[in-house]
Amino acid sequence: MADRFLDDDFLLTGESARRLFHEAAAGAPIVDFHTHLSGADIARDRAYGTLTEVWLEDDHYKWRAMRLAGVEERLISGDADPWDRFAAWAQTVPRLVHNPLYVWTHLELRRVFGIDLPLSPATAREVWDEANRQLPTVTARRLLARFSVSVLATTDDPGDDLASHRRIAHESGGAHGLVVPTWRPDPAHRLLGEPTAWNAWADRLGACVGVGVEDLQSLAEALRRSYRRFVELGGRASDHGLDSVPDAARHADAADAAVRGVRRGAPASAEGRCALTTEVLHLAGDLAHEHDCVLQLHLGALRDVSPRVRAALGHDAGADAIGDDPQAPGLARFLGQLEAEGRLPRVVLYNANPRDNTLFGAMAGAFSLPGVPSPVQWGPPWWFNDHESGIRRQLEELAQVGQLAGFVGMVTDARSPLSMTRHELFRRILCDVVGGDVDRGLLPGDLAWLSEVVRELCAVNAMRFFGFAAPAVSPWG
Amino acid sequence: MADRFLDDDFLLTGESARRLFHEAAAGAPIVDFHTHLSGADIARDRAYGTLTEVWLEDDHYKWRAMRLAGVEERLISGDADPWDRFAAWAQTVPRLVHNPLYVWTHLELRRVFGIDLPLSPATAREVWDEANRQLPTVTARRLLARFSVSVLATTDDPGDDLASHRRIAHESGGAHGLVVPTWRPDPAHRLLGEPTAWNAWADRLGACVGVGVEDLQSLAEALRRSYRRFVELGGRASDHGLDSVPDAARHADAADAAVRGVRRGAPASAEGRCALTTEVLHLAGDLAHEHDCVLQLHLGALRDVSPRVRAALGHDAGADAIGDDPQAPGLARFLGQLEAEGRLPRVVLYNANPRDNTLFGAMAGAFSLPGVPSPVQWGPPWWFNDHESGIRRQLEELAQVGQLAGFVGMVTDARSPLSMTRHELFRRILCDVVGGDVDRGLLPGDLAWLSEVVRELCAVNAMRFFGFAAPAVSPWG
Amino acid sequence: MADRFLDDDFLLTGESARRLFHEAAAGAPIVDFHTHLSGADIARDRAYGTLTEVWLEDDHYKWRAMRLAGVEERLISGDADPWDRFAAWAQTVPRLVHNPLYVWTHLELRRVFGIDLPLSPATAREVWDEANRQLPTVTARRLLARFSVSVLATTDDPGDDLASHRRIAHESGGAHGLVVPTWRPDPAHRLLGEPTAWNAWADRLGACVGVGVEDLQSLAEALRRSYRRFVELGGRASDHGLDSVPDAARHADAADAAVRGVRRGAPASAEGRCALTTEVLHLAGDLAHEHDCVLQLHLGALRDVSPRVRAALGHDAGADAIGDDPQAPGLARFLGQLEAEGRLPRVVLYNANPRDNTLFGAMAGAFSLPGVPSPVQWGPPWWFNDHESGIRRQLEELAQVGQLAGFVGMVTDARSPLSMTRHELFRRILCDVVGGDVDRGLLPGDLAWLSEVVRELCAVNAMRFFGFAAPAVSPWG
Repeated sequence: MADRFLDDDFLLTGESARRLFHEAAAGAPIVDFHTHLSGADIARDRAYGTLTEVWLEDDHYKWRAMRLAGVEERLISGDADPWDRFAAWAQTVPRLVHNPLYVWTHLELRRVFGIDLPLSPATAREVWDEANRQLPTVTARRLLARFSVSVLATTDDPGDDLASHRRIAHESGGAHGLVVPTWRPDPAHRLLGEPTAWNAWADRLGACVGVGVEDLQSLAEALRRSYRRFVELGGRASDHGLDSVPDAARHADAADAAVRGVRRGAPASAEGRCALTTEVLHLAGDLAHEHDCVLQLHLGALRDVSPRVRAALGHDAGADAIGDDPQAPGLARFLGQLEAEGRLPRVVLYNANPRDNTLFGAMAGAFSLPGVPSPVQWGPPWWFNDHESGIRRQLEELAQVGQLAGFVGMVTDARSPLSMTRHELFRRILCDVVGGDVDRGLLPGDLAWLSEVVRELCAVNAMRFFGFAAPAVSPWG
Repeated sequence: MADRFLDDDFLLTGESARRLFHEAAAGAPIVDFHTHLSGADIARDRAYGTLTEVWLEDDHYKWRAMRLAGVEERLISGDADPWDRFAAWAQTVPRLVHNPLYVWTHLELRRVFGIDLPLSPATAREVWDEANRQLPTVTARRLLARFSVSVLATTDDPGDDLASHRRIAHESGGAHGLVVPTWRPDPAHRLLGEPTAWNAWADRLGACVGVGVEDLQSLAEALRRSYRRFVELGGRASDHGLDSVPDAARHADAADAAVRGVRRGAPASAEGRCALTTEVLHLAGDLAHEHDCVLQLHLGALRDVSPRVRAALGHDAGADAIGDDPQAPGLARFLGQLEAEGRLPRVVLYNANPRDNTLFGAMAGAFSLPGVPSPVQWGPPWWFNDHESGIRRQLEELAQVGQLAGFVGMVTDARSPLSMTRHELFRRILCDVVGGDVDRGLLPGDLAWLSEVVRELCAVNAMRFFGFAAPAVSPWG
Repeated sequence: MADRFLDDDFLLTGESARRLFHEAAAGAPIVDFHTHLSGADIARDRAYGTLTEVWLEDDHYKWRAMRLAGVEERLISGDADPWDRFAAWAQTVPRLVHNPLYVWTHLELRRVFGIDLPLSPATAREVWDEANRQLPTVTARRLLARFSVSVLATTDDPGDDLASHRRIAHESGGAHGLVVPTWRPDPAHRLLGEPTAWNAWADRLGACVGVGVEDLQSLAEALRRSYRRFVELGGRASDHGLDSVPDAARHADAADAAVRGVRRGAPASAEGRCALTTEVLHLAGDLAHEHDCVLQLHLGALRDVSPRVRAALGHDAGADAIGDDPQAPGLARFLGQLEAEGRLPRVVLYNANPRDNTLFGAMAGAFSLPGVPSPVQWGPPWWFNDHESGIRRQLEELAQVGQLAGFVGMVTDARSPLSMTRHELFRRILCDVVGGDVDRGLLPGDLAWLSEVVRELCAVNAMRFFGFAAPAVSPWG
């Protein structure tokens, strides 16, 4: 039997799926509206010294996999020799049976470097040499060009000066839209228990927008000005990471007291933090509504459960988990209040815990705006759901309790431009779900129509939903 | 490749599945023990003016789909021209890829009107003309006859005079059983916070049964009399819709105070409402036990999350979601108490949130009564679970943690008689699950035995579980 | 079409799966690190009088299935004639379509007795006669030998004298490791509300290890001594059954007061019980860390929900369900605290409610120890998850959010040695998952590598993770 590993038709079960993928999905551009890529790397068109630098420097998925394989920390996140770190990764890869990293790794080797060797200790040296040989031509911008990335959103602090975005925009002929910032004000509530950190954050924000942050009102004013700066540089969305949306009435006085308190060095109480969280969310809702932008909520991650990793490496280091807080009450209250007050913006909801899939799908589908398909989206499969069966179950459930045709599509959540290959995986699974329905007799075999649906899910819906504008000149070079 | 859309064998993967469906399931009668069909429509053998009337008048699933497609409300639930409303629906249908409405819509067109066109803007006029041409012969009763409906249960308020049921029963030769009412006393606790509405409800109930409702005792007496009236007209069950069963000890005094209070115009507290909910549930348990009837619990929906839709259209308008309250403690307490006191009736549990599937299956399977297979049922896939993979996962999980052979089978939850086609979908999936086990080597290929199991799940178990009596004369024709 | 029922390749979908199973998995020894088998039965090499004795005497899965079929209790757990009980079971079996008991039953008949008749009332007498004819040669030890069981762990009270384990060890040439005890101190907190039962338990424990249990300190000392006795006889693990791990700070004073109180006959408060639960868990963590052993947590069962069954038969009688307590906060707190204090041992987590699958997988994967692959395991599919799709979804999710290659593998949770067939089922599904990825193009077709992975999951990882030592002489005879 021929080895089918990552062949042209992998993950495409039937004829309809194959046609949809090759004819409609494969060639669609990429609109990646949520990543953690570095604007600075793109601005300076970063080149990478070794495969270790582009693959292992900032990829907490790989770090976690290596730790679970028993690799010592020095070879994971430490200062070990680049080859030694790569060799440790190569030793880990054969352990990743049925893990998305296995497919990601080999798709990246194939699509970027043309290397089709399975990575293992036996092939590590050959892969290393060949990839490193090609690296001088594999810069950040060339990678984005190679994957036909139309729009890419970074994730940024409200106090960021956005110099990189400005530089990229300038090079794109003054038009905005290709590399856009996303406004993420989480520190406003996340750091409220750590006055030193909060005050540094607030000072930077205040300096950036010319507002002295002293209380809730001035904080809100600073955030409003910051949001406008993001919009001016093509930003179309905010993003918020929370355990859950608080199921509590607004309490501006408590939020104000929390801000005044932390300014005096007093850590906020849980109540104060909850009150400020709610105020920030409502402010983000208002701003999205005013500026015709999008509010994104990432809900249910349980971060930094390993004290050892957190102490050594801080956040986003691969030691996160999933929480099981109730999600329905807070979401229903917040979205209902925005709608009742006539200021419901477009919203994207991401859930970390897949047990909440149907709940998120049903909640999103309960809200509507005339003329706007699926204004509240149950967003792309996120983090612990970003793998084959996770994507499949989310697409199926979304189609069943919501409306697949309006779906805003996939994001990479990338920390390396190589991760753009994940769109290929998503598209294969999407075509397999849709094509499978044709082959099972649940849809008519009208592939012209279904190709159009697939194309919209690949990029068109995202362009329209976020209101991205195509730039005059590609900045990829 | 031939277009397999809804062909004879759609959803039937293997030879065993096909034989089970065509030989055992396809011809079985329908026992639809939970619907929202109108008794009055059946009593007067309602005819429909246009396809819009039979399809869009009261179908909140379609309303929701149209809203998610961005259609304006006037064309959904408003007073727009019937053709315009139908055209808006036809425009929505091609967006419903992998949504149950896509299959439902086209099965209804095929099975009732013999129309096999995929509905879209391009075919809308042809479908409209042909269906409307046939409509004069498509009355409520002829539809039920066409689908071989043996028993159909409506959902009714305890204060309903049941005149339609009486008329249908009279025409059936005095025997009861074909169109039976279901006793749903939810307003008793649901309206406790709205004194005007509650008092109107209680006055109507009291007048209907000749009891002045003043306190818990007289409310219970009125409800008992009402229940007996339902039983006299063939009613075999109560039904209750709740977020969750309260996990609280009985507190009759608090319930009594809540009733007295609302009678004086004072909205009940959360505590009083909880206390009355518990009393109503225990009363329903007693009544089911006394009358050898069934208690049904619909748990976990989160209703009316869109204030805009609720304000415009009230309940059941397509703006509902799913909650995530804990379900185990209240269920275990309530069922355990009924059992400990020797008054556990037959029970059907429906869950809105599929994350609770295994919990409901395991909870139901923990209770038993000698001589009664599966006395506590984990009921048919409900609402957000009534689609292909929802039915499949529920049948599989029920078989695995409970006992498939004793399952009481499917209901439509219908608001239009056209929805009877949903039984065909359920039966195809059932045969695919059972036949699939034969083809995979998990069951012997004894199709005579498995056909018998399938037949029991299609209608026999439901007849037996509810104790429905077949009428002397069919009222359909 | 040929009947495929339990043929050589059942559950093996493709060529890669078939090769992996037959070449790598089928012949691997069994390491069953969690069972409820009786050490005494093995020590005396128990023989069984009838098929009823070995099949129905202590199998609450079968009891539950018979109750759900409506069988009267006398024929289930009562003193009815053995043939009558077996006949009632034979009548139940054809109702178990798609239930794991159907496959288990027939695998056991085939693998142990060579009987390939489907069990039903029609075949019951023939099966009964043939199986009983063979029973004299089907002893406890011969069964374990027939299944190539390398290591088998029982579950034992800290106050058990372990005489059976001592006798088996003696017969194994003084080496330990073949039949090992597991330390399960649940009564310490579970019985705190029942002073008579608690005091009897504590007295037995104290007498066994020579410590008078009076307060927290002496209880801990008694438990420490007991743990050492278990380790001396090859014990490598503790086991704990809880609704959830308490999300509460340690409170030794409250735990001490609870112990002193129950010693004086006062039932502990919920707070006291929670405090002692936490102390016992931390003690078990310390002991596992000190002795290089494993801590196992069985979380989320809701036991004895039927008061009728509990009153008649006590615990483990087939009337259990699943709870829906939050699991993340307590787990994160407990594991985080052990890690922060440098005493995180190897851990195995089992969840009863599959809605928590991804949560458990993600939580386990957040903890690491250099040199130890997957030190915190999301354990084998447990109880209501031990069936085909339960095993499949758990293997896939573990692979996707954790690391399949380090997985410690399957256990039977057996109450009869016949249950060892469940390892065959697990291995078929495992090979189908891994082989399926090859056939779908997600893994290279390097079956030598994948065979090695499969072999490690069958037995090698468990030997290594628990640190079991192979004995000099097989005690199976």
